[in-house]
Amino acid sequence: MTKINQIRNYLEENQLDLAIFSDPVTIHYLTGFHSDPHERHMMLFVLPDSDSLLFLPALDMKRAVATVTFPVVGYVDSENPWEKIKAALPQKYFKKIGAEFDNLNLTRYHGLQSIFNQAFSDLTPLINKMKLIKSRDEIEKMLVAGQFADKAMQIGFDAISLQATETDIIAQIEFEMKKQGIHKMSFDTMVLTGTNAANPHGIPGTNRIENNALLLFDLGVETLGYTSDMTRTVAVGQPDQFKKDIYQLTLEAHLAAIDMIKPGVTAGEIDYAARSVIEKAGYGPYFNHRLGHGLGMSVHEFPSIMEGNDLVIEEGMCFSVEPGIYIPGKVGVRIEDCGYVTKNGFEVFTQTPKELLYFEG
Amino acid sequence: MTKINQIRNYLEENQLDLAIFSDPVTIHYLTGFHSDPHERHMMLFVLPDSDSLLFLPALDMKRAVATVTFPVVGYVDSENPWEKIKAALPQKYFKKIGAEFDNLNLTRYHGLQSIFNQAFSDLTPLINKMKLIKSRDEIEKMLVAGQFADKAMQIGFDAISLQATETDIIAQIEFEMKKQGIHKMSFDTMVLTGTNAANPHGIPGTNRIENNALLLFDLGVETLGYTSDMTRTVAVGQPDQFKKDIYQLTLEAHLAAIDMIKPGVTAGEIDYAARSVIEKAGYGPYFNHRLGHGLGMSVHEFPSIMEGNDLVIEEGMCFSVEPGIYIPGKVGVRIEDCGYVTKNGFEVFTQTPKELLYFEG
Repeated sequence: MTKINQIRNYLEENQLDLAIFSDPVTIHYLTGFHSDPHERHMMLFVLPDSDSLLFLPALDMKRAVATVTFPVVGYVDSENPWEKIKAALPQKYFKKIGAEFDNLNLTRYHGLQSIFNQAFSDLTPLINKMKLIKSRDEIEKMLVAGQFADKAMQIGFDAISLQATETDIIAQIEFEMKKQGIHKMSFDTMVLTGTNAANPHGIPGTNRIENNALLLFDLGVETLGYTSDMTRTVAVGQPDQFKKDIYQLTLEAHLAAIDMIKPGVTAGEIDYAARSVIEKAGYGPYFNHRLGHGLGMSVHEFPSIMEGNDLVIEEGMCFSVEPGIYIPGKVGVRIEDCGYVTKNGFEVFTQTPKELLYFEG
Repeated sequence: MTKINQIRNYLEENQLDLAIFSDPVTIHYLTGFHSDPHERHMMLFVLPDSDSLLFLPALDMKRAVATVTFPVVGYVDSENPWEKIKAALPQKYFKKIGAEFDNLNLTRYHGLQSIFNQAFSDLTPLINKMKLIKSRDEIEKMLVAGQFADKAMQIGFDAISLQATETDIIAQIEFEMKKQGIHKMSFDTMVLTGTNAANPHGIPGTNRIENNALLLFDLGVETLGYTSDMTRTVAVGQPDQFKKDIYQLTLEAHLAAIDMIKPGVTAGEIDYAARSVIEKAGYGPYFNHRLGHGLGMSVHEFPSIMEGNDLVIEEGMCFSVEPGIYIPGKVGVRIEDCGYVTKNGFEVFTQTPKELLYFEG
């Protein structure tokens, strides 16, 4: 069943007569058509019993018409978008309307209210639930995105040099990815050396790669509409024993979490599997973020793998496992793979080795 | 006066007792602190008569505390953010609350309603108005962003080759920019060859650069928190006379618009200055977008330079002038500079020449 038809079924079952989507990622997910309209309006209207309607800037008409199989209406900047939407929809009274609250801003909400004058119900849970379980086709695309992340990581490893800065290495990674046809990294690539890696949201700069220290890479690509995300921390020269111990502890936590993932466990239990390893060793306060996040067309989506989340894991869910230990001024380690839940376990999208790798500066 | 104090004055004048901002760009603009919290919450609360409060993920606490001069409260994923916000604010009844509707999604709106239970008034117009007029300091930063755009354009020109693809050239541009310390382009760089340029939202790919054709570059960088944006269309080999004529017509429209910009004219009049040149020559339907958009910390903001916009231009406004002619299957040309309005005219941020430049493939 197409995703649009899943929405239509939901509307019928819930006696809604209109669904409105305004998030470019959701519209891409539902229709296969992707565009970033910036501050202009792009909205998808799905009705239970007649054609859907895609409303967007006239500039994007041609591409949209070539992609979707239902009517497309474009507007130019000088037109009133709300009036044009009203005219394009069936001339009937819409009583029960759903919209994705997470991705509908108040201005657009009020614009829609000027046409519909109705309280909306929230379709965020529906969309999140649909996105949560990936089809085999989606997983295949994410495996491709993962392969490119492995390639990008290898390029990063090859660029390690005490003469290079963090930014130099990032430039090299993204250059080679572009050359291989990757238009977009799924987020700003991070290469963090030494104590800069001890900040979980550190910012790469012109720091030269430190010797006898750890070096952290966090990267991912967007391809075929899907994202990848992975982190490796490697040794440059000969880091001291303490740094190596923190690495081993992080790896142990990472593997403990991966080992226990299968349908039926909860997100909170997976988080705890990693966290308890780190807590037992006395470094709990230095692992100050959740274990993981879902990903798919976006690099952050559901499920959230964190303490207190009772969500029961199902086959087809995709998420990251990324414990980290950040001891300010001393050392930062994170090890991250994303993967998908199978009938009995968890398969990762990325294959770069996890044991501590050593590089000459 | 600091921007926060401008907000406080506005609150007092309008008898509001709380302003809420949730857009990372607006928060950066008002506080100097930048972070992208993804799906987590980051919100700035400004009160007329007591300290402001920045609420954000605990991960970002350290950087935030080092940047802003008022209290910062962090939350971790397992906490209820709304309860934590309520506890962190002064324990009083907030009667009149403003929020930026353009950047407040319904989910967050409802979360805030669970604490405040109040209709909000819209601060979008206030923020847009503040952002609309750039200070000298902001213009200095935008001049730097413009200089980098000129450098990026030159790198693109140097990379022109019939052996190269659009994507190769983009990779080269972004690589060199990264090496020069630019973390981020302000949007996905576009290099479009031949008829691919005839689509105003064409997507670069592995097309090899065509000979005897036009080649379009649209690019910008983000630096010091501000953006640049420029487009040049150049000749590769010897394009035919028709293509050269379309280029000259676009250039004439571009210059006509720039010539008439000064305080007192309207945005619509500027659009018309360019559009009428193209319409008189019979190509009106092929210029199917507005003339320009404002830019600053975001690459698209107010003012919108378009038909029907009666906004009166003032000193300090910054926007693009980018007429384009796109004849499907034949030729696409766009010439874009961004600039700032002075006492008597308009100064552009980018200095790459505008006459048709010729390159050997």
